[in-house]
Amino acid sequence: MNKVLILNGPNLNLLGERQPDIYPAPSLEDLNKELAGLAAELDLEPEFIQCNGEKEMVEALQNCRKRVSFVVLNPGAFTHYSYAIRDAIEAISVPVIEVHISNIFAREDFRSKSVVAPVCKGTIAGLGKESYRLALIAGKDLFAS
Amino acid sequence: MNKVLILNGPNLNLLGERQPDIYPAPSLEDLNKELAGLAAELDLEPEFIQCNGEKEMVEALQNCRKRVSFVVLNPGAFTHYSYAIRDAIEAISVPVIEVHISNIFAREDFRSKSVVAPVCKGTIAGLGKESYRLALIAGKDLFAS
Amino acid sequence: MNKVLILNGPNLNLLGERQPDIYPAPSLEDLNKELAGLAAELDLEPEFIQCNGEKEMVEALQNCRKRVSFVVLNPGAFTHYSYAIRDAIEAISVPVIEVHISNIFAREDFRSKSVVAPVCKGTIAGLGKESYRLALIAGKDLFAS
Amino acid sequence: MNKVLILNGPNLNLLGERQPDIYPAPSLEDLNKELAGLAAELDLEPEFIQCNGEKEMVEALQNCRKRVSFVVLNPGAFTHYSYAIRDAIEAISVPVIEVHISNIFAREDFRSKSVVAPVCKGTIAGLGKESYRLALIAGKDLFAS
Amino acid sequence: MNKVLILNGPNLNLLGERQPDIYPAPSLEDLNKELAGLAAELDLEPEFIQCNGEKEMVEALQNCRKRVSFVVLNPGAFTHYSYAIRDAIEAISVPVIEVHISNIFAREDFRSKSVVAPVCKGTIAGLGKESYRLALIAGKDLFAS
Amino acid sequence: MNKVLILNGPNLNLLGERQPDIYPAPSLEDLNKELAGLAAELDLEPEFIQCNGEKEMVEALQNCRKRVSFVVLNPGAFTHYSYAIRDAIEAISVPVIEVHISNIFAREDFRSKSVVAPVCKGTIAGLGKESYRLALIAGKDLFAS
Amino acid sequence: MNKVLILNGPNLNLLGERQPDIYPAPSLEDLNKELAGLAAELDLEPEFIQCNGEKEMVEALQNCRKRVSFVVLNPGAFTHYSYAIRDAIEAISVPVIEVHISNIFAREDFRSKSVVAPVCKGTIAGLGKESYRLALIAGKDLFAS
Amino acid sequence: MNKVLILNGPNLNLLGERQPDIYPAPSLEDLNKELAGLAAELDLEPEFIQCNGEKEMVEALQNCRKRVSFVVLNPGAFTHYSYAIRDAIEAISVPVIEVHISNIFAREDFRSKSVVAPVCKGTIAGLGKESYRLALIAGKDLFAS
Amino acid sequence: MNKVLILNGPNLNLLGERQPDIYPAPSLEDLNKELAGLAAELDLEPEFIQCNGEKEMVEALQNCRKRVSFVVLNPGAFTHYSYAIRDAIEAISVPVIEVHISNIFAREDFRSKSVVAPVCKGTIAGLGKESYRLALIAGKDLFAS
Amino acid sequence: MNKVLILNGPNLNLLGERQPDIYPAPSLEDLNKELAGLAAELDLEPEFIQCNGEKEMVEALQNCRKRVSFVVLNPGAFTHYSYAIRDAIEAISVPVIEVHISNIFAREDFRSKSVVAPVCKGTIAGLGKESYRLALIAGKDLFAS
Amino acid sequence: MNKVLILNGPNLNLLGERQPDIYPAPSLEDLNKELAGLAAELDLEPEFIQCNGEKEMVEALQNCRKRVSFVVLNPGAFTHYSYAIRDAIEAISVPVIEVHISNIFAREDFRSKSVVAPVCKGTIAGLGKESYRLALIAGKDLFAS
Amino acid sequence: MNKVLILNGPNLNLLGERQPDIYPAPSLEDLNKELAGLAAELDLEPEFIQCNGEKEMVEALQNCRKRVSFVVLNPGAFTHYSYAIRDAIEAISVPVIEVHISNIFAREDFRSKSVVAPVCKGTIAGLGKESYRLALIAGKDLFAS
Repeated sequence: MNKVLILNGPNLNLLGERQPDIYPAPSLEDLNKELAGLAAELDLEPEFIQCNGEKEMVEALQNCRKRVSFVVLNPGAFTHYSYAIRDAIEAISVPVIEVHISNIFAREDFRSKSVVAPVCKGTIAGLGKESYRLALIAGKDLFAS
Repeated sequence: MNKVLILNGPNLNLLGERQPDIYPAPSLEDLNKELAGLAAELDLEPEFIQCNGEKEMVEALQNCRKRVSFVVLNPGAFTHYSYAIRDAIEAISVPVIEVHISNIFAREDFRSKSVVAPVCKGTIAGLGKESYRLALIAGKDLFAS
Repeated sequence: MNKVLILNGPNLNLLGERQPDIYPAPSLEDLNKELAGLAAELDLEPEFIQCNGEKEMVEALQNCRKRVSFVVLNPGAFTHYSYAIRDAIEAISVPVIEVHISNIFAREDFRSKSVVAPVCKGTIAGLGKESYRLALIAGKDLFAS
Repeated sequence: MNKVLILNGPNLNLLGERQPDIYPAPSLEDLNKELAGLAAELDLEPEFIQCNGEKEMVEALQNCRKRVSFVVLNPGAFTHYSYAIRDAIEAISVPVIEVHISNIFAREDFRSKSVVAPVCKGTIAGLGKESYRLALIAGKDLFAS
Repeated sequence: MNKVLILNGPNLNLLGERQPDIYPAPSLEDLNKELAGLAAELDLEPEFIQCNGEKEMVEALQNCRKRVSFVVLNPGAFTHYSYAIRDAIEAISVPVIEVHISNIFAREDFRSKSVVAPVCKGTIAGLGKESYRLALIAGKDLFAS
Repeated sequence: MNKVLILNGPNLNLLGERQPDIYPAPSLEDLNKELAGLAAELDLEPEFIQCNGEKEMVEALQNCRKRVSFVVLNPGAFTHYSYAIRDAIEAISVPVIEVHISNIFAREDFRSKSVVAPVCKGTIAGLGKESYRLALIAGKDLFAS
Repeated sequence: MNKVLILNGPNLNLLGERQPDIYPAPSLEDLNKELAGLAAELDLEPEFIQCNGEKEMVEALQNCRKRVSFVVLNPGAFTHYSYAIRDAIEAISVPVIEVHISNIFAREDFRSKSVVAPVCKGTIAGLGKESYRLALIAGKDLFAS
Repeated sequence: MNKVLILNGPNLNLLGERQPDIYPAPSLEDLNKELAGLAAELDLEPEFIQCNGEKEMVEALQNCRKRVSFVVLNPGAFTHYSYAIRDAIEAISVPVIEVHISNIFAREDFRSKSVVAPVCKGTIAGLGKESYRLALIAGKDLFAS
Repeated sequence: MNKVLILNGPNLNLLGERQPDIYPAPSLEDLNKELAGLAAELDLEPEFIQCNGEKEMVEALQNCRKRVSFVVLNPGAFTHYSYAIRDAIEAISVPVIEVHISNIFAREDFRSKSVVAPVCKGTIAGLGKESYRLALIAGKDLFAS
Repeated sequence: MNKVLILNGPNLNLLGERQPDIYPAPSLEDLNKELAGLAAELDLEPEFIQCNGEKEMVEALQNCRKRVSFVVLNPGAFTHYSYAIRDAIEAISVPVIEVHISNIFAREDFRSKSVVAPVCKGTIAGLGKESYRLALIAGKDLFAS
Repeated sequence: MNKVLILNGPNLNLLGERQPDIYPAPSLEDLNKELAGLAAELDLEPEFIQCNGEKEMVEALQNCRKRVSFVVLNPGAFTHYSYAIRDAIEAISVPVIEVHISNIFAREDFRSKSVVAPVCKGTIAGLGKESYRLALIAGKDLFAS
Repeated sequence: MNKVLILNGPNLNLLGERQPDIYPAPSLEDLNKELAGLAAELDLEPEFIQCNGEKEMVEALQNCRKRVSFVVLNPGAFTHYSYAIRDAIEAISVPVIEVHISNIFAREDFRSKSVVAPVCKGTIAGLGKESYRLALIAGKDLFAS
């Protein structure tokens, strides 16, 4: 199975428009296009979902569980309090790699704690759009067959 | 009025599939079937809702408020942070019994705090599917007419 | 631009029915009618949204960003934990005034902390329906053109 | 083995006399009579012990360990600090169900933490004398043979 | 009775001179002049006191208790520790509206806690001189006769 | 009723022998003799109990509840953790005055918190044997008939 | 020397008028009259000061240091934060007895901590005007010559 | 004087039966037999007490104070909250060596804090029955004459 | 401008009399005389103010703002809680050097936190009267023209 | 400049030997060989340093500052307390990517806090030797010229 | 294997010179001589290392791992923060016994927490040089062959 | 003895190069040259040591103990966690004055706590290179003979 779900959380649809000093990435559409290119190179079949809702994220995780090799997850603000997403990650057997565009450890206090990190395989933070690229590469190496 | 709402929160739709050491219960469908049987014995008319979303839980609570004698509520991960569900319980006059399949006091730290417990009538935790059965019996004895 | 969004969070649809000692305001419908009258006097064009869901609030904030001069926001229970709503406020350039009907500093401990306050322009709490009225007046003075 | 120990902690001998708004139950004698009736229905042989002392509770737990199928335990105020009782529960192989008459999560802060809950099978709180009734039913279903 | 006390705490006499990025308001004299104008429109008789001392604030509150309909109070730095002022507010039967020029929730940690807020009727913060204007309007609507 | 219970907790039987710099009082026997004299002057009938056990203290409080006008209580180390004694005080209708020989606020950190103080009528600490004498006088004035 | 200073802090001038459920004492004037009578009986020469200001309390303590045998001090709200008063007590050699009319341990959290208690000889709280009476008696016994 | 008290706290009578992974020691009886042998070698006269009650431990400590050279104390669960035992140790002049079979710093959080350690001469933990043997040797070297 | 304000807080007027082990300095008068001598050597024109009141300190800071090159400030106990003094320092453009006679980091816990330090230019503590001398020298070097 | 420093902290020299369940990586030598291969592919010139000492790490960071384009840093246990290493990272202008073999957020509490993360460009954790590989790739993309 | 490493941390080279009230032991040289004698009696071959550096301690632990049966470790101040030493202990399979000369639980707060204790076999504290002697005896009994 | 050790900790060798906004001082070499000049004026014989290692700092402190009158110590980042340096200061009888170039109370939270301050004679912070100059002057006045 060589499918991967790239799942983005709330407000990431505004990427490129919102706080350009913190999120200098291109728009989400452009980012996804770039990631689709990289996925193709890696022989991965990507699926892109962005949701502003916790329920939608929980269900995206549940639904992918028989379909994908791994998930690249940027939970946005849900990183810091959504135990429902944490439980969804734990409930499925699919490996999840947590990514963040900005360095969450260098911003407001509340951002330095991720409630999903303990149930993810790994975390990549602070490297801009490169965070996603690395997650695809790692997932390919470690979890895709 | 002898109606009861049995309301389950996020990820409980995966019951039986997810972490069998912690949740050894049967599937949610089987559990509900069994509870329907017990409800019939108790002369209760059960309604079953499972939702992965906070909004859906808030509205299930709001909507039942003129229709049921009591609610059996397993808020799943929302137990630990959903003040919106807490407010919904406080806002309706229907008694709510909080149930948990696992012993939430014997797991990760964050699970030992329930933000809804203070506004529920009571809490039953750790007894597997029996937690739900007891809640039906208690609700019948205390709140159903 | 003289449009304003009046955005109410979870359980505020039960206003007037719920806990009358804390929320002695009229029903939400009546409140909105009254606010519509005031808006007219202030030459503002009001839009009213109430949602029980976090996603709906995030998207209401995102969607209004090119349409309104300011937002009057009562996040209800989300006040205390929704970093997703906080991020939405930060992501848009529209000024937001936070309002609360009750004095959130005089109730349960968890209510005295607002996670959205640091990114709002200001906060008005404890003055019943007057809190909304003042927010309209302030928004007119400060943000509407 | 169908024996059950119903073990009540300090000040529960004053039940019915003490703080009737919090403990509206009948006297302990009446409660025990009622529970004895239910036990008979459930084909259980109950033993009733109330003690005001920690040592007496520790030893009641130790002594019952070869004699009963399960214990229904209301540790009273010891709930919140008696690690000696906790150790006694851990030391014996008999399953213990923790019960509370009042909703301990809705009272003073110190009452919301139970140091014995992590080593009990489950917890039932807030349902008045029904808490004990449910514990008997659950114990019968789960632990009695 | 249509009198109102507008009571400003320590260092507010330096308004306009001090930290113009945080306090862009005009001088206190100019502000008071503007508020006097608004008060006249609202048919309120304003009294203005600014004190740098806690004793002076306590006594201003005590002394106004038989004379004014409500108080508009900006306690300055006392907001964060003066339980003496809190007790004075509690001791008098006059309603008090707390105001702040800056958004106290978006500055240093210590500023996000107000020890007087729980005994005030309401709080208005972050809206510059408009905070005072709104307090006058609210007081007129709610507390003046 | 003019009876009073003077109830001393663990290790107070060693008074006069133990840490003379902190407890410069005479022996407990001598102290009790002196208090008996004062009681006689006040027309009070004193009863003296010292126990090293929590159970004994709980039961002394329970048992006196129909017999005495008030209790003078020095809980010794139990002051800092015995919620069982706290519950006993709350359960009886007899007023209790807490006394301490030493200034518990000027010693180790753990001694500065009394878990029984909130349910006692008052607290007298730091005045040596005078603490007991004052408690007798106060009890006579306030609670004895 | 048989002089005693009875020093009352902020808002105690409103005694009898303020929150009668918490402070059922008579007016300060009446209380002082009663205490003057008791002082006479005890052969003490009382001096009465009430101040709403911290500076006034610090200086009253400093100034009495060569004139009185002991001080009866009710610091009012300053109890909870005035390290300046604490330092004044430490700086003088006169023994100070802290008194409180209400049971400060049974009210809001912030009231349960006294920053002056560690440097006072003793503390008497919760016994209404009797708290003062006891302090006079204790001071006479322990510190007056 | 060459007497030594070996004092064991609650649930240690179950040694060998309880949690063999944590407490792999032999039964208490066997342990005591072995320690008696070592004591004889060291020319010490041992006395063995095990109690499940705090009162019994306090009194064992008090009573031994004129009879033994030192105490080997395993307070069991009381280690973590019994300030009454702490006070008893402080009140007697006999040196006390605290011992623990298991490594209390490597288990649940609450076990890593000993309230008696600050008043004991020393602490020996984690070395199984060897902990007791070492305490006898140390006591012989340091405290026995 | 070569003027300097040497501003001392509450209880420093008792210097030399109070706690000689902590404050071995001479009397304030003598200290000031010595500092006047040093100031003369440094070609500085000193002004000495000591106040026991917070208001007086706030106003001394405000008033000196157009007159002095720098302030040497020992806030006494206000160091630990006076946000009003902190705000005054921030409000004026005059540099302030905080000084302490004793080592505030080696005394009671509450003394190790200074709420004014973050807005002062620097802090000098623990060096007795030398602390003031150094502050004069530093102010001369850094801030006087 | 295409040089990169791969800097490993204390105990990483034992890789492969130590706790194979947590660190299933090959030996450090083998890992470095593999990374050298990848570096070559990426046209990077790698330098490998492992040190067990904080000083050596600080100086390795200082010394590389004029020589390398970026640093791949696994600080080992220093992650959690070495502010000296943090300061060294801040002091040099070379970008640093923090890597961890294991998921530091899923282990002991103390490991979930990195004191260096706030001054690194990004963090990659939990992906075994892949963490290092990704860091090389990211550094090449972002920082190498 | 009968070798043992006796490893002392920073500042223990000053033993006998430094703070004689806390460390009344002889000089380190004398102590080591005495321990060498005891080791000979126990048929153990001792090796003595004292280092003031963390790196040296980490490497002493790493290097001994194939050579000794057990380690007697006094980490000195590193006890309280060196996670690098903790990791070294965990990384080697040699059992380590932690010793302290003084009672670390009876001194400053920071000393009561040992970050290495959870990975040592046991801890012996407070018994002066006897702490080392006991560790040798225990190691001989438990770990040497 | 008129020798003084000026001891600088990690990363201070980069002074002048590193973060010029925080450390506007000249290079360490230049600073030392300037201090040497001042020392000569003060008739002090200075010794300059800068080390990036904790061991080196501990040993510099130990080694100077028979040679210098006082130490001027800037521990750099070790300020915040090196209990080994603290112990070294306590172990020697030489007085130590702690200095900091920047105002450590106005930067990141972790910098506001110094673990060495309680054992130093005094602390001088925030005055740039002047901090060192003052320490030399103070040491000359107070500790040099």
